[in-house]
Amino acid sequence: MAQRHLDPTDPRPRHAGPAPTGDALAGYLRAQATEFLRALRLHRETGTGAGSSEGSADAARALRRSARRISASLHTFQSLLDTDWCEGMRPELAWVSGSLAMEHAYTARLERLLSALHRLSGSTAFPGPTAGAAAPAKASAPIHPTSAPERGNLTVGAAKAGALLDRQLNLARTRAHSTALQALGSSRFHAIADKVAVLASEVPLTKTAGTTDLRPLAAAAEGRLTDAVAALPLVTAGNPYNASALVHGLSPDTVPHPQDAPWHQVRLLLRLHRYAREAQRGEPNGNTVVDLRLLSAGQALNRHRDASEAAAAAAQAARTPRIAPATAYALGVLHADQRHEVEAARFAFQQCWQKETVSTS
Amino acid sequence: MAQRHLDPTDPRPRHAGPAPTGDALAGYLRAQATEFLRALRLHRETGTGAGSSEGSADAARALRRSARRISASLHTFQSLLDTDWCEGMRPELAWVSGSLAMEHAYTARLERLLSALHRLSGSTAFPGPTAGAAAPAKASAPIHPTSAPERGNLTVGAAKAGALLDRQLNLARTRAHSTALQALGSSRFHAIADKVAVLASEVPLTKTAGTTDLRPLAAAAEGRLTDAVAALPLVTAGNPYNASALVHGLSPDTVPHPQDAPWHQVRLLLRLHRYAREAQRGEPNGNTVVDLRLLSAGQALNRHRDASEAAAAAAQAARTPRIAPATAYALGVLHADQRHEVEAARFAFQQCWQKETVSTS
Repeated sequence: MAQRHLDPTDPRPRHAGPAPTGDALAGYLRAQATEFLRALRLHRETGTGAGSSEGSADAARALRRSARRISASLHTFQSLLDTDWCEGMRPELAWVSGSLAMEHAYTARLERLLSALHRLSGSTAFPGPTAGAAAPAKASAPIHPTSAPERGNLTVGAAKAGALLDRQLNLARTRAHSTALQALGSSRFHAIADKVAVLASEVPLTKTAGTTDLRPLAAAAEGRLTDAVAALPLVTAGNPYNASALVHGLSPDTVPHPQDAPWHQVRLLLRLHRYAREAQRGEPNGNTVVDLRLLSAGQALNRHRDASEAAAAAAQAARTPRIAPATAYALGVLHADQRHEVEAARFAFQQCWQKETVSTS
Repeated sequence: MAQRHLDPTDPRPRHAGPAPTGDALAGYLRAQATEFLRALRLHRETGTGAGSSEGSADAARALRRSARRISASLHTFQSLLDTDWCEGMRPELAWVSGSLAMEHAYTARLERLLSALHRLSGSTAFPGPTAGAAAPAKASAPIHPTSAPERGNLTVGAAKAGALLDRQLNLARTRAHSTALQALGSSRFHAIADKVAVLASEVPLTKTAGTTDLRPLAAAAEGRLTDAVAALPLVTAGNPYNASALVHGLSPDTVPHPQDAPWHQVRLLLRLHRYAREAQRGEPNGNTVVDLRLLSAGQALNRHRDASEAAAAAAQAARTPRIAPATAYALGVLHADQRHEVEAARFAFQQCWQKETVSTS
């Protein structure tokens, strides 16, 4: 069974004071629902006007943030909540945060790949992303790969690879933007928003929830996390330059890379654990007490996910018909570079996790 | 000024017992000259017959080994030897070991690249090198890249990349083999062999060499090494996944990679230091007392050199006209993989070197 990781930065003793119950959960859910509604209002105010992309992206991020927390609490503390309501709510919240996440993901992926190409090509004239977070209008703008100085075959290759990725990922982002706008305007979304509005004042707790201790449920979430971490190849990951992330890097079955899946799973479980801690502490803003090690472990896993998806995007772009060999070469270098980022992120996670285990044992 | 690294495995105290003088150097040089002549005889016996490639390669390795040691001693202990003789001898020995090294280098490079492709493609059917160390006849054999199972675009790319590298490096090896055979049959080589034969019985020491302490000269060689190591970016190298080896990986000025040069230089200085230690200890076989840390530091630098040259060969192959995009993509992945090997080798060197410094400080 999984070991428990106590947090020495936690100012409250774990087994002293009144146990957090369903009331603490209800407070947490009401606060997240209020935050959801606030973000939604903000998004409607900033979303469609020109020059407001920054605020709109912030609002979308806040919407996703609260949707994730509500959804996670419904998962972890399911037994304290009305079953039908939970089962109706969770897929809808997942749909909301999924719809809103894609645009940001494509933006970040393009930024990551272009900045890697910039680093790899050593060209200061290499262009950055052509568009900001919520300005998909540029996606159809003409691409001028030759505007970068032609300093030999490979630099042209890097520029062409950048232009290709820019075109493909901007197109995907534009579609994601439309999908998100459609989602937010749909009757399905309005139904969810109504339910969240009710949740902001009235949490459907079970009859016994008010006296039920949250801690065993939160501990179970932590147990699922530590079990999943124990199944990761952490010994390999802690050995720098183990070259395991690029194994089968030229195999055709590698998009998405099967070896990444357990790490993605741990990323989700780590998030569930973090939100369960927030809920049992009744922290309305979710970050009053921050466990820096949990946070940095989570950041390493985010980096892992981002690099994994960026590597897949580079491999995917290399399958575009009729590209020049120099473009394909640059995409191959880029793919391998991002797979090494995957390996580096696993190493970083192992270092964080080991620190945690050592300091609490 | 450079710090000294004392070797705790050295059974003799540094400043006790009779100081090694020119006589020890003469003994060392005679032993190396004898070894050179023995290897040469062996090479002539095994060199041209069929099925004797193994023995021939061993003999060539032994020839290079003793040539390197004689040349290094002439460099480090120059002031104890006849100047004209030294100046006439050193470029000739460098020519011999250079001529003999190329064939082995191409063989090893091809093996390294094909085994990396094998690892990356995850294909068990991927062919190994088509020829052994001294069997260049296969270089003109027909290449069948499609004999590997076609499991999608990228695996075909890996197979084609392997076939291309196999063709190019086997051709280079065939040429190197011919060059080495020509060199060994030339009057220039016979003149060197004659000089080495004289050296085996009569070392041209200066008049004062018999009473001159070798240790300051050996210490100067060590000082040159430690100064060069101190100029290396070891803090970066000791930080895993620093991503510095692939910086400018797509820049056109990167073959050979300028950032590798100081490491190659340290590799040569480390060898000079090791041979100077051998000479002052009067070890005829050169490896009676082995400093494992020096050896592993040297191995890390060999790996650095090999990966650096393999990465350059992959980049070079990607410039072949009219290759398929899938081939170019595979070569890009391979290039990046080998540049990460370069980074891994630097990390390994930093680890060895740090251990040495810590344990003697």
